[in-house]
Amino acid sequence: MTRHPLLITGFLDRAEQMFGGTEVVGYDGGREVHRSTYRDHARRVRRLAGALVELGVRPGDRVATCCWNHHRHLELYSAVPLAGGVLHTVNLRLGPDEIGHVVGHAEDTVLVVDTSLLPQVERARRARPEMRVVVTDGDAGPGTLAYEDLVAGGEPVTGPPPVAEDDLAALCYTSGTTGTPKGVGYSHRALFLHTFAACLADGHAISERDTVLHVVPMFHANAWGIPFAALMAGATQVLPGPHPSVADLAAAITGERVTYTGMVPTVAVDLVAHARATGTDLHGLRALVLGGSPPSDELLRALDELGVPTFQGWGMTEISPMGTFARPTPAAEADPAARRAAVRTQGRLLPGLQWRLVDPDALPTGDLRDVPHDGVATGELLLRGPWVADRYYRDERPESFVDGWLRTGDVATIDPDGYLRIVDRAKDLIKSGGEWISSAALEQAVLTHPGVREAAVVAVPHERWQERPLAVVVAAADTAPTGEELRAHLAEQVPRWWLPERVEFVAALPRTSVGKIDKRALRSRFGAAAPERPPSPVQ
Amino acid sequence: MTRHPLLITGFLDRAEQMFGGTEVVGYDGGREVHRSTYRDHARRVRRLAGALVELGVRPGDRVATCCWNHHRHLELYSAVPLAGGVLHTVNLRLGPDEIGHVVGHAEDTVLVVDTSLLPQVERARRARPEMRVVVTDGDAGPGTLAYEDLVAGGEPVTGPPPVAEDDLAALCYTSGTTGTPKGVGYSHRALFLHTFAACLADGHAISERDTVLHVVPMFHANAWGIPFAALMAGATQVLPGPHPSVADLAAAITGERVTYTGMVPTVAVDLVAHARATGTDLHGLRALVLGGSPPSDELLRALDELGVPTFQGWGMTEISPMGTFARPTPAAEADPAARRAAVRTQGRLLPGLQWRLVDPDALPTGDLRDVPHDGVATGELLLRGPWVADRYYRDERPESFVDGWLRTGDVATIDPDGYLRIVDRAKDLIKSGGEWISSAALEQAVLTHPGVREAAVVAVPHERWQERPLAVVVAAADTAPTGEELRAHLAEQVPRWWLPERVEFVAALPRTSVGKIDKRALRSRFGAAAPERPPSPVQ
Repeated sequence: MTRHPLLITGFLDRAEQMFGGTEVVGYDGGREVHRSTYRDHARRVRRLAGALVELGVRPGDRVATCCWNHHRHLELYSAVPLAGGVLHTVNLRLGPDEIGHVVGHAEDTVLVVDTSLLPQVERARRARPEMRVVVTDGDAGPGTLAYEDLVAGGEPVTGPPPVAEDDLAALCYTSGTTGTPKGVGYSHRALFLHTFAACLADGHAISERDTVLHVVPMFHANAWGIPFAALMAGATQVLPGPHPSVADLAAAITGERVTYTGMVPTVAVDLVAHARATGTDLHGLRALVLGGSPPSDELLRALDELGVPTFQGWGMTEISPMGTFARPTPAAEADPAARRAAVRTQGRLLPGLQWRLVDPDALPTGDLRDVPHDGVATGELLLRGPWVADRYYRDERPESFVDGWLRTGDVATIDPDGYLRIVDRAKDLIKSGGEWISSAALEQAVLTHPGVREAAVVAVPHERWQERPLAVVVAAADTAPTGEELRAHLAEQVPRWWLPERVEFVAALPRTSVGKIDKRALRSRFGAAAPERPPSPVQ
Repeated sequence: MTRHPLLITGFLDRAEQMFGGTEVVGYDGGREVHRSTYRDHARRVRRLAGALVELGVRPGDRVATCCWNHHRHLELYSAVPLAGGVLHTVNLRLGPDEIGHVVGHAEDTVLVVDTSLLPQVERARRARPEMRVVVTDGDAGPGTLAYEDLVAGGEPVTGPPPVAEDDLAALCYTSGTTGTPKGVGYSHRALFLHTFAACLADGHAISERDTVLHVVPMFHANAWGIPFAALMAGATQVLPGPHPSVADLAAAITGERVTYTGMVPTVAVDLVAHARATGTDLHGLRALVLGGSPPSDELLRALDELGVPTFQGWGMTEISPMGTFARPTPAAEADPAARRAAVRTQGRLLPGLQWRLVDPDALPTGDLRDVPHDGVATGELLLRGPWVADRYYRDERPESFVDGWLRTGDVATIDPDGYLRIVDRAKDLIKSGGEWISSAALEQAVLTHPGVREAAVVAVPHERWQERPLAVVVAAADTAPTGEELRAHLAEQVPRWWLPERVEFVAALPRTSVGKIDKRALRSRFGAAAPERPPSPVQ
């Protein structure tokens, strides 16, 4: 067989040749601002790629983007690799210092930025004065170039870039919740295979018949790889624009007859509330995929009631980012409760990847002791495969890898049908009286109470038991339980000694730059506070 | 990203870990002879692989199979690559001399054969006395080993084989309709990617929810790659056994609730007749994929009436074998006639592959002149990609390749939506009075007559016009048209000078070893015969 290179740039050729009339649609604040076809999209991408080459982008050079989800960002997803460059999507929710750090670490040669985000990149620009700055919208200010001028003036690139399949096509940095952001480079080969995985019938199943709404930020973890998948499949793509409201999303879903979208549970909670309040019909969705953190049973039940088929995907920046997909077995699909239970797991490993679950105590010595896949035994999850990192970008971090496997840092179980349940981040386990309590399992139990919308459990120091769990809860409107009611509810599901003595009710949970619950913030806010009442004897 | 090798042996690990309870079912003459699970299947495969290694199979050694579609053949599909060997599926419909030739050319070290097929491989055994012979069923005769003894005694192979992704996993020979059979070697990488392609939502979409019936022979072209796809996806697999009757197939479809199957149109025609005669309910099929030759409109209409969603796939031994898939566009899906028209094309190129349509006249000089993809201009189809051959096995055949592209030998059009229509084999075009007539287009026109079940058009020599088309027709029961009626029907669809002066009615068309219409046989039977009537003046 031909040693034909696996390059993602072929997806554009395909969309152009076979889906030339399929649309790319852009909104801004609920207003349509862009409507074109793949034919025009490809024409613009090819010109932009040519302009980037003319700007001096050489094979392997990094081109940073600091942009919301709009059609120009989508063009950059194809144009930078087509120019032979590496698409470095900068997380615009990082602070200016961190953005300065990642742009400096990546040594970006070009930065493409939305006008509204110019203040965020000021420090990065000062740190890399040689970097060319392109503004996507509005007039180009001093020292900047206008995106549309590049598109207008570029010489179209038609052939594949002069790169090999193992060369990088993209680069993301982790959100840095546990320290300095770490870079993960994605080869053409990795993203090519990841794109096929996203289109598998048992995965996200992106197809020509889909209209995809990009809710997941395109500035983080390749937007789950869905922009590449939609291009390859020839799906219609809808871009909601800068910080869309949930009303904007709902209007796009109904107005554009969206069939597929993905989002974090927090956004889905708001979408559900909006749909209920306004009577918005979400039936057109064939799949709503939740990711980033596990959904509550209440959310899944609400989506069931709205007739929205819901799934969960799990991944990491380090794995391009998709690792698993929770599609219920055919048997579970027939029963709503079993279906929800399956979707509350992280799902099955995607084909092509390999996993191990190993004893976390033996791991630091490099000893990989497998624990059984019985749905009960917990172990740290290790991954390897053609779209799994085996190093960080310009930063080896050997502690993150063992014997060719990525250490995910997640403690999990795997059941005999191959369904993954992440029990906790290794570092979020709560050690009480010498025994481990899973903060994630406790959160899941709290979330089964109908009066709870969102919940987080963190460890707080305790004189006698070293650590005890604290539950922080966002109550559902009108039906807030008391701490006592919540404990009674929990007592049916978890060991008595897991019951949190303290329950704090808040209006909203603090979030990190990528929308994850910021447990560091919770620990620092509540860790030293006086107890609600004296700790009751446990166990 | 990890340079993690793409090996097909991981699919077995996956099926074993995640779909351990899913069934593999075998029939023989309509009687159930095997029912097990992937857990047991994997156990047997691992032991068989160990036994093959103990027999002396070394990495890269060829292991031939000469078997019908049964569970042991399915086990060999995984066991031979797991042993590090190359699965050489021998087409049991070849004659003993040709089988001797391909086994000698491949230098097979082991031959696994069904007892009933021992006579076919006699010559091959004499030619390679050092080759070990394993008999799948019954007692092992002198000089042979019993398959079940190997399974019982083998030391299970658990790890991946010591091979690289570019090493061969399988080998098939073409059917040799145009000369000596040519070998095509399939690398692990090629089959890995081909398997992903078979599971894409817009392709065959093989999924865990499927029960797959293997009608396509497993001794030819990797059975379209579906055994690997079903294993990766965790689909239930049903093996119909030796030369199943159409009643056996229908019984398996209803009895096992088959959701997916693929077959040549000839078999589908018989299946439809059987279903109509017996009232067999085929509604459980979510996809019946036709391949090997294009279906008639009558067949598609009949399958529509039976409520069977039908598709067409096109491929070649040289491309692993799938190249395209005809799934109607969302717009065409809504209209039965448009749907049938889309399914009568060869469909769209699978992602990952590339094609060109080039001027056949310039091609022999190595000059690749692209013709437009406008649905009108014809050209020879060229292909390349990670599962397209760039040479034959131990046989370079440079005339089959040009500038890194495989010459398919097919003359085709491609429309602006990327739908391929194969107009003819380059060598089957009819040259009449200096102008080309497409035998395939004429066949398609003949097939639109409701009284025609099957048809072939071949060139016969003609004194004045050099060549003229001859139509050979199998009439539908009770409704056979006359030659005159057929010409009147054709006159509405094709130029007058295409109308065949001669129409021959036959009970069945001659077929090659893989079920294609044997045009050589038709030409030799009818080429010299007296005309039905004097040729009328044509255009």
